[in-house]
Amino acid sequence: MPLKVDLNADMGESFGAYKLGLDRELLNLVTSANIACGFHAGDYMVMQKTVNMAASKNVAVGAHPGFPDLQGFGRRNMQLSPEEVRNLVIYQIGALQPFARAEGTELKHVKPHGALYNMAAVNYELAKAIAEAVKKTVPDAILLALANSEMVKAANDVGIRVTQEVFADRAYNEDGTLVPRSMPGAVIDDPLQATERALEMVLEGKVTAINGKEIPIVAHSICVHGDNPKAVELASSIRKQLEKAHVEVVELTYVLKAAYS
Amino acid sequence: MPLKVDLNADMGESFGAYKLGLDRELLNLVTSANIACGFHAGDYMVMQKTVNMAASKNVAVGAHPGFPDLQGFGRRNMQLSPEEVRNLVIYQIGALQPFARAEGTELKHVKPHGALYNMAAVNYELAKAIAEAVKKTVPDAILLALANSEMVKAANDVGIRVTQEVFADRAYNEDGTLVPRSMPGAVIDDPLQATERALEMVLEGKVTAINGKEIPIVAHSICVHGDNPKAVELASSIRKQLEKAHVEVVELTYVLKAAYS
Amino acid sequence: MPLKVDLNADMGESFGAYKLGLDRELLNLVTSANIACGFHAGDYMVMQKTVNMAASKNVAVGAHPGFPDLQGFGRRNMQLSPEEVRNLVIYQIGALQPFARAEGTELKHVKPHGALYNMAAVNYELAKAIAEAVKKTVPDAILLALANSEMVKAANDVGIRVTQEVFADRAYNEDGTLVPRSMPGAVIDDPLQATERALEMVLEGKVTAINGKEIPIVAHSICVHGDNPKAVELASSIRKQLEKAHVEVVELTYVLKAAYS
Amino acid sequence: MPLKVDLNADMGESFGAYKLGLDRELLNLVTSANIACGFHAGDYMVMQKTVNMAASKNVAVGAHPGFPDLQGFGRRNMQLSPEEVRNLVIYQIGALQPFARAEGTELKHVKPHGALYNMAAVNYELAKAIAEAVKKTVPDAILLALANSEMVKAANDVGIRVTQEVFADRAYNEDGTLVPRSMPGAVIDDPLQATERALEMVLEGKVTAINGKEIPIVAHSICVHGDNPKAVELASSIRKQLEKAHVEVVELTYVLKAAYS
Repeated sequence: MPLKVDLNADMGESFGAYKLGLDRELLNLVTSANIACGFHAGDYMVMQKTVNMAASKNVAVGAHPGFPDLQGFGRRNMQLSPEEVRNLVIYQIGALQPFARAEGTELKHVKPHGALYNMAAVNYELAKAIAEAVKKTVPDAILLALANSEMVKAANDVGIRVTQEVFADRAYNEDGTLVPRSMPGAVIDDPLQATERALEMVLEGKVTAINGKEIPIVAHSICVHGDNPKAVELASSIRKQLEKAHVEVVELTYVLKAAYS
Repeated sequence: MPLKVDLNADMGESFGAYKLGLDRELLNLVTSANIACGFHAGDYMVMQKTVNMAASKNVAVGAHPGFPDLQGFGRRNMQLSPEEVRNLVIYQIGALQPFARAEGTELKHVKPHGALYNMAAVNYELAKAIAEAVKKTVPDAILLALANSEMVKAANDVGIRVTQEVFADRAYNEDGTLVPRSMPGAVIDDPLQATERALEMVLEGKVTAINGKEIPIVAHSICVHGDNPKAVELASSIRKQLEKAHVEVVELTYVLKAAYS
Repeated sequence: MPLKVDLNADMGESFGAYKLGLDRELLNLVTSANIACGFHAGDYMVMQKTVNMAASKNVAVGAHPGFPDLQGFGRRNMQLSPEEVRNLVIYQIGALQPFARAEGTELKHVKPHGALYNMAAVNYELAKAIAEAVKKTVPDAILLALANSEMVKAANDVGIRVTQEVFADRAYNEDGTLVPRSMPGAVIDDPLQATERALEMVLEGKVTAINGKEIPIVAHSICVHGDNPKAVELASSIRKQLEKAHVEVVELTYVLKAAYS
Repeated sequence: MPLKVDLNADMGESFGAYKLGLDRELLNLVTSANIACGFHAGDYMVMQKTVNMAASKNVAVGAHPGFPDLQGFGRRNMQLSPEEVRNLVIYQIGALQPFARAEGTELKHVKPHGALYNMAAVNYELAKAIAEAVKKTVPDAILLALANSEMVKAANDVGIRVTQEVFADRAYNEDGTLVPRSMPGAVIDDPLQATERALEMVLEGKVTAINGKEIPIVAHSICVHGDNPKAVELASSIRKQLEKAHVEVVELTYVLKAAYS
């Protein structure tokens, strides 16, 4: 059976008069769209339009909830209680859901955004709050989580489906966490090298950490960016090389089925 | 068959550290709770708590969407297009829905708030946008509309259920619209008189307009307020007198069934 | 004595991660920068940076207050009382002022934004509220107002300095108001024609209205846009032709001095 | 020469339709009012009204800037850079200033709010950013800081005036920091005991820490609360006992003069 992997991208992050991201271009490349829900980015007009575009291209639609911090684009840590995080995520998933249904589809996955994602990756209580929110609102949806993170554990404990995502253009520490962007070597600028890493993670289930050691990694999905033409080019390059290597690029549900069949 | 009427009140209009309204007291009196959805008032914590309280008292839970204007409490007119209003309402209904489901209930009705309610009452395009939002998100829910307003027409045209609400403590113009609060005589302060008017509207289907003429009015539901102890007292007085007159106070679904049976 | 005119542009309308406008390019062309104050657009980081850029290019810095409606970019009408408008404008001018002072300059003018500008142009009470706000916060600053509008009257009544601005790329009604963008012919797309109109207004004090009649108009300042490269090109063309015609392009203070000397 | 102390309270923390705090009652008791600036609480209407009330009672008006987090009332930690904090505080001070001037007064002090206060108390970089913001906007104003905190150091380094505040109803650790509210014994509920502690700090310059040890403390100002009638009663009790002990209750400027004369 051929290997399968999902490509996911954050979308719908425009707001009012402000345009952000190359959503239209990315929708030709990815199989899962993480759509902002009006807190860190996005608004009800952008959500409607983005879901419509994604559905028309048969890209799986998922929720991309974030902190209530538009000015910081959800990238600034905020100290919320697990109870607050649970309701924050329930609200945002709920808000996106009718737009998906209006297009004849359902929310297929949930991927937290920015600081919420990073905090939950290493904080089990927050991760659990997110997993519970998913279970309460869209119990059949898949949590898209950082590989090896607390979110993976929490999803399993709470009893929802979970997939692990990897980053082609980011360096890893030996423990599987990402090297922070502020550190030298954290971002891999060379598209060739980033593409090779993506392939290695998908095909061989491992990646070379920043200290040179090889570490095992599960790559259900590769996160690609669309904030500039070069990022879209990298996404395109990864997709092409995956297909050349006979890896099927499919949405998360089929990756999961293949993984556990 | 006994007459039936619903009592409804706006709730969940606290925000963060700010407390507003006597929700707990009102939940002993009303049969429908219109719960703010985080735009003109309310937030995801307040929504969760309010739905929980309402459900535990078997009060029907509905959405109370408003303009994105917390500072103005949704009472300032804003010039939004019908398309914006439709998505605004879809978003807010969607956001409340999972909190209702988490309590084992469903959204039974939708009542627009403040300036959105007043503008849609006299603007068919906005009214239709709201009715369409209800149809897309909660097609079985009932739109709770100002008696005789454009919202009633729009709901019928769009094909959703609609009920008409009346105000015991507000004066009516001869054409069935409310006398604006800024006009003398607009608010009926005397609880006895307000109670009598409520009874007259429910029992006789008519009300005396500010110019002295009797006008027909359909009273599926009476709106009561909970912004001060005196308002709660008025609600209590209305409920008592209704029951004394053998009017059954029940949620909207049963009022509608009785009305069209 | 040579004719003098100011060129003004709205700036600092980015927000957080969202970039908007070609501020850097425009600062080489204009003599007055209207800087957003964090309500319809802008934030405290953008304000600091924009004031710094403007000051370093010796462009006059002014406040550009708008409605509290980031999602609508301050372009949606909102029903605020004159008292609310006065405090809204005081707050925003106040917030910008220390950023100007930190760069060793002062706020030279105030120009309301979007719907606030349009509403105040035809509503004397709102116009007066804005003029009073200017008088209370920056009494030496100049109100930059639509030519012939209520804002001009209100500024004179309140006792602050006022200048009149014109639009090169917009059609005028016979009464001096702008033809709304929704009407055919409202926007003049041809840069050559727009430039000619600008010159006619400045040099001859008149403009041809959409119905073909010539109307008198005072052009203390021409508003130019920087939302796309073509708009910047138009601004550049206007500036060049003005200089060719020996019109001095200078900030508002010098225009006013020349006008009343 | 008699001892002097200031009493300060947070005010103007209402927002739109939401009322909070017993400002009117407190203004009869305190000598310094810390007025919210529209971020964690307050809005331009509330600011205008509160400054007016304070000025009419000859209470010194100061700015009370907080994090941009209305829902969390500025009490949730947010990870902002020093540069962001500096501009955040400049913006808020600037916004309040014209309201003070309109009442014929000036901002006399600045006291950060909630999480911003707590984070800056232990983080020199943030404390310095706040001190610099004060210096840039109101160089003659006094920073009102937690006794013994990083804010005191930063203010001295930056070269602005600073006063130290103490809490009558809170327990102290041996190092002079406050025992967090989540710990047992953190809040002193007994008004008599709280009043005694206030007197001890002012008269003897020391306080008994939670572990029983006496620690030195400088009490230029005592913070009192107005969130409920009992808090106002405590404030009243403290004021009475201070006067009985011949301590003069005066605004910060006079406390500082006395301290360094």
